[in-house]
Amino acid sequence: MGYSDTDKLAINTIRVLAADATAHANSGHPGAPMGMAPVAHVLWNKFLRFNPKNPKWLGRDRFVLSNGHACMLQYALLHLYGYALSIDDLKAFRSVDSITPGHPESHDTPGIEVTTGPLGQGICNAVGLAMAQAHTAAVFNKPGFDLIDNYTYCFLGDGCLMEGVSSEASSLAGHLQLGNLIAVWDDNQITIDGSTEVAFTEDVVKRYEAYGWQVLTVGDGENDLDGIEAAIKKGQEEKTKPTLIKLTTIIGFGSKQQGTHNVHGSPLKPDDIKQLKEKFGFNPEESFAVPKNVYELCNEAASRGAKLEAEWNDLFAKYGEQHKAEHDDLVRRQTGDLPEGWEKSLPVYTPADPAVASRKLSEIVLNKIHQAIPELVGGSADLTGSNLTRWKDAVDFQPPSTKLGDYTGRYIRYGVREHAMGAIMNGLAAYGTIVPYGGTFLNFVSYAAGATRLSALSRVRVLWVATHDSIGLGEDGPTHQPIETLAHYRALPNNMVWRPADGNETSAAYYVALTSKHTPSVMAFSRQNLPQLEGSTIEKAIKGGYVLHEDETADITLVSTGSEVCICIDAIKELKEKHNIKARMVSIPCFEVFDLQDKAYRMSVLPDGIPSMSVEVMSTMGWERYTHEQFGLNRFGASGAYKDVYKKFEFTPEGIAKRAIATVNFWKDVPNIRSPINRAFQQMI
Amino acid sequence: MGYSDTDKLAINTIRVLAADATAHANSGHPGAPMGMAPVAHVLWNKFLRFNPKNPKWLGRDRFVLSNGHACMLQYALLHLYGYALSIDDLKAFRSVDSITPGHPESHDTPGIEVTTGPLGQGICNAVGLAMAQAHTAAVFNKPGFDLIDNYTYCFLGDGCLMEGVSSEASSLAGHLQLGNLIAVWDDNQITIDGSTEVAFTEDVVKRYEAYGWQVLTVGDGENDLDGIEAAIKKGQEEKTKPTLIKLTTIIGFGSKQQGTHNVHGSPLKPDDIKQLKEKFGFNPEESFAVPKNVYELCNEAASRGAKLEAEWNDLFAKYGEQHKAEHDDLVRRQTGDLPEGWEKSLPVYTPADPAVASRKLSEIVLNKIHQAIPELVGGSADLTGSNLTRWKDAVDFQPPSTKLGDYTGRYIRYGVREHAMGAIMNGLAAYGTIVPYGGTFLNFVSYAAGATRLSALSRVRVLWVATHDSIGLGEDGPTHQPIETLAHYRALPNNMVWRPADGNETSAAYYVALTSKHTPSVMAFSRQNLPQLEGSTIEKAIKGGYVLHEDETADITLVSTGSEVCICIDAIKELKEKHNIKARMVSIPCFEVFDLQDKAYRMSVLPDGIPSMSVEVMSTMGWERYTHEQFGLNRFGASGAYKDVYKKFEFTPEGIAKRAIATVNFWKDVPNIRSPINRAFQQMI
Ligand SMILES: [Ca+2]
Ligand SMILES: [Ca+2]
Repeated sequence: MGYSDTDKLAINTIRVLAADATAHANSGHPGAPMGMAPVAHVLWNKFLRFNPKNPKWLGRDRFVLSNGHACMLQYALLHLYGYALSIDDLKAFRSVDSITPGHPESHDTPGIEVTTGPLGQGICNAVGLAMAQAHTAAVFNKPGFDLIDNYTYCFLGDGCLMEGVSSEASSLAGHLQLGNLIAVWDDNQITIDGSTEVAFTEDVVKRYEAYGWQVLTVGDGENDLDGIEAAIKKGQEEKTKPTLIKLTTIIGFGSKQQGTHNVHGSPLKPDDIKQLKEKFGFNPEESFAVPKNVYELCNEAASRGAKLEAEWNDLFAKYGEQHKAEHDDLVRRQTGDLPEGWEKSLPVYTPADPAVASRKLSEIVLNKIHQAIPELVGGSADLTGSNLTRWKDAVDFQPPSTKLGDYTGRYIRYGVREHAMGAIMNGLAAYGTIVPYGGTFLNFVSYAAGATRLSALSRVRVLWVATHDSIGLGEDGPTHQPIETLAHYRALPNNMVWRPADGNETSAAYYVALTSKHTPSVMAFSRQNLPQLEGSTIEKAIKGGYVLHEDETADITLVSTGSEVCICIDAIKELKEKHNIKARMVSIPCFEVFDLQDKAYRMSVLPDGIPSMSVEVMSTMGWERYTHEQFGLNRFGASGAYKDVYKKFEFTPEGIAKRAIATVNFWKDVPNIRSPINRAFQQMI
Repeated sequence: MGYSDTDKLAINTIRVLAADATAHANSGHPGAPMGMAPVAHVLWNKFLRFNPKNPKWLGRDRFVLSNGHACMLQYALLHLYGYALSIDDLKAFRSVDSITPGHPESHDTPGIEVTTGPLGQGICNAVGLAMAQAHTAAVFNKPGFDLIDNYTYCFLGDGCLMEGVSSEASSLAGHLQLGNLIAVWDDNQITIDGSTEVAFTEDVVKRYEAYGWQVLTVGDGENDLDGIEAAIKKGQEEKTKPTLIKLTTIIGFGSKQQGTHNVHGSPLKPDDIKQLKEKFGFNPEESFAVPKNVYELCNEAASRGAKLEAEWNDLFAKYGEQHKAEHDDLVRRQTGDLPEGWEKSLPVYTPADPAVASRKLSEIVLNKIHQAIPELVGGSADLTGSNLTRWKDAVDFQPPSTKLGDYTGRYIRYGVREHAMGAIMNGLAAYGTIVPYGGTFLNFVSYAAGATRLSALSRVRVLWVATHDSIGLGEDGPTHQPIETLAHYRALPNNMVWRPADGNETSAAYYVALTSKHTPSVMAFSRQNLPQLEGSTIEKAIKGGYVLHEDETADITLVSTGSEVCICIDAIKELKEKHNIKARMVSIPCFEVFDLQDKAYRMSVLPDGIPSMSVEVMSTMGWERYTHEQFGLNRFGASGAYKDVYKKFEFTPEGIAKRAIATVNFWKDVPNIRSPINRAFQQMI
């Protein structure tokens, strides 16, 4: 305890920097940084373990700014404490190609753990980071080696608390008894629409107690530094509950407009900044000025952090002497490389093998590879028996007191919380020692759209096991049958959508998804059985698209994915036998990976001179990029036995043949048919 | 109070019908219907106001099954109480083209208010229905005429409570003091993964109290019929809080496997059904048998309902004598038709009018039309000042005690709760007297994907005012810049995506969105200013796509939407002046509406014989359907001033011209260029 004038100056420096940077950018959110400067100072100066010279030090505490619009707070901290973020970077706030974008992006900026801004996400990422700490500690810590013992701290605002995704994750965090998680709620009673009185009058304290959290209160978040410190300490001491600190603050503290929504999302006016600087003892003529003693104070904390890392490194070296395998495993995990030879565990199939649902093929993969990849940590949003995401004898990730598992457990019971699952997986992946996967029906990956887009943007390796991937789920009907989902996720940049047609393609999907360190995947699996295809191999399928059945004299190329490939193959027989039409067969289990192949290869798969038709039982959107004609389903499905549903919509050999014939006839007078992938210019990717 | 053996037999009849139908379909969820049969009986027999002969009677109570997988409960009730749902329909449960699909669909089945199944949605729809009741009552009720006084009842399960969307809506429902909402939580301690102990151990009672709900408890939901009745009564008596009844039940009550997750999602085995029927006094050799006295008991309730409607109709007729305008308005609203001549309020622009951001154009429309369309009820998810969704002098929809508005208010403060906003709008629209719209950034419509898909599936008129629709939002950066969003919603069946280029197109978007009674719309609006275009008219734009600038000798057709249309027009000048290339200009503000035009019209807009290129600053996915080449953004955006961001990605007249030239060159050797809309066969829609 005990805070000096320099502490107060450091706090006001953050406020002034936030005001300067938003004014300079003429854009941004000064209010929350100014209101939260005191708690940020106490946390970073007295508690947070970090080494600015090595932002990736495994032993560091994790800091998440869930109210990401307050990022000038974080940028100011990163600068003051000596991360590779200069005053010029602050001046470049919110300008193109800066490392200080309008919301924090983990891949852009050293010291940013997760990409935040879309409200509610950061607190869920923090839950994931805390779960990752608990798991990694349980697996790696040994007597005398409390290697993995960091806290995860999270700041969040009213908006984060209103978002349902944070409710989901907070309920789970309480269930999981995450004593290593400390969240600070910026209770400033203001949102964009004005007072929280207009829409947010619930009793948050009571709600978080209901989730099983410790809830603490600091009534004067602008001045009571000792109270803030005491609350954080109490959060650290509570070992079996996450902590929420209700910190009452004044948004835009120091501004003439403090306490109003006017300071939320707009820069302060020049005269307001002037009085602010004068009030806080800054020269109103100077901008982006940091007093020397503030730098010194922050440098001290940074030096303490560097020393902590050095000690940790010593401990880790000693750990390596006594626990070499674990040491090396932990080193390897942080590189993102999988254990050598893991891929030999992937199952390989021949056409003689029985027909199996691809969700079951996915389960077989998980059963085969989970021992080879110890960092694989999975779960499901309450559909374990349907998603088939739990390998035999898996241990559940649970607090030991529940007697349902323990923290070494690698299977997470997410409950019916798809969105939180997605956001938590982003946190699990960001921790650096875990490769997460999560199961639900493909249709309900959409519930998690807010999180999946951030997986892609922040370039984390997250795998969705998305079963029941089409009208092929049958009886559950249109409410559960995805139509638009693959188009949605195919349109999402840096996101792979896989829809394997058989066992080898399923292995290929897992191979590419697991070895793509910086790209998430949505893997779509069938409920219904699929035969093992003649001509499929893992090697071909990892190219994203390939010729399954070649015929140099073909009249048409059929192109398909997943459960429709085998129907197309029957259609090819039908075309040959009844209509004397010859067809090639192409399988494209993953657009994104196919697009990455060189043009010569892609043209060999989808050549000029022959018309093509795609077949997929969902939206045709996007298929025009690969084929001349599309047979799909641009309407909602139907409830019934899956074979009846396929028949209703004519996804049968006859229905496909009929449209293939129409395609051949329609294109027969066109000379020099161009392949659709033959384009005038390159896309910007 | 006081329940006879016939009541118990009616309850057991529901259980046996659920067992029979799921067994007959060999699919479905018997457990919840069997566990909730008692509360369903008490509610439907003693409380619910309904007339099976007129499922659309405005004065009816609304019943929502949020745990939609339990739909055999609802189908059994609909049958027993005399709705147009026969025993044969029950036998057709979960078969193609039945009116008894795997989850309840409001457009398929008389008596189903809203389409449920995706967990968490129904309770939010119920909040919307209750809000609609409160609003409609406040507007139309007069002294002596309590016309609109129904309750909304909702059943929900553990899954619904775990979903974040229900948290959002429940918090808002508490804030809004919806005393007309009574929810029954099927507390059976079971989810698909087994005991709720594995993931759901929060204190739900305390949480709902924190939201401001009245929470009541019935400990024996299988036998304590008097307790159930008392709880519902108490829910009715509480006028300023929604009520949650925690009803402890036994899933699959009567089955040998009752109380386990084995009865959740699979039919009972034959021997289990046999013992069930014997235990409940049914003939085990008979299926789908309903005792005569059960029909009689239910018929009595139905007759009481018919009488209630008759009385209501008398009251309404008297109301019409004293309040003719209101009477006629209420009659009209229920038809879905808008007031005659409302469209004359739509603003019309000429090129002389100033450049305005289309979000502002949207605000102008709202200001102009809100008086002409009294059923228009809007709101925003805490972005009112950015979305510009609130007309001048709007009254907020708030409990009068807050002094922030009252229930006649037509502006809803949703808080930062996009998903709940979407699901609540589905309920508002389903009530029958309201046309809802809601605002957020386009990027965050994705948070509501679970709800928007149900808007489309259930065919309700819901309008999204989705502002900040691209990288044009500028400084907020990639976390807030939609790339995949339009592709996602364009791929969603029965959903219109509008992206207007100027004022006339904005008016057209509203015109079509408001007059499409059975289709929701996502209207994407710019943050940045857009000029009023030469050649745009409302009449042309309501065709979804049209020629903005014709040139019979053109070398290329440029096709665009929204904020890129005016840049294309500058590119056309550039092409002409610097490269001697002539271009036609087509605007397609709405794919879905353009697709509905006849082929001759569409071919006149996108003719054969000329190459075409689309320009839109987001995913190119879907544009291949209309154009030969696509200039878009298949990567994430950047944080910076919007003009800098457009420049970075070359969305400038020069960048467009460069690609147009490449397109012309690439296609110049192709004879008889085919328009992409010229296809071999029709899509299934
Ligand atoms: Ca706030
Ligand atoms: Ca349950």
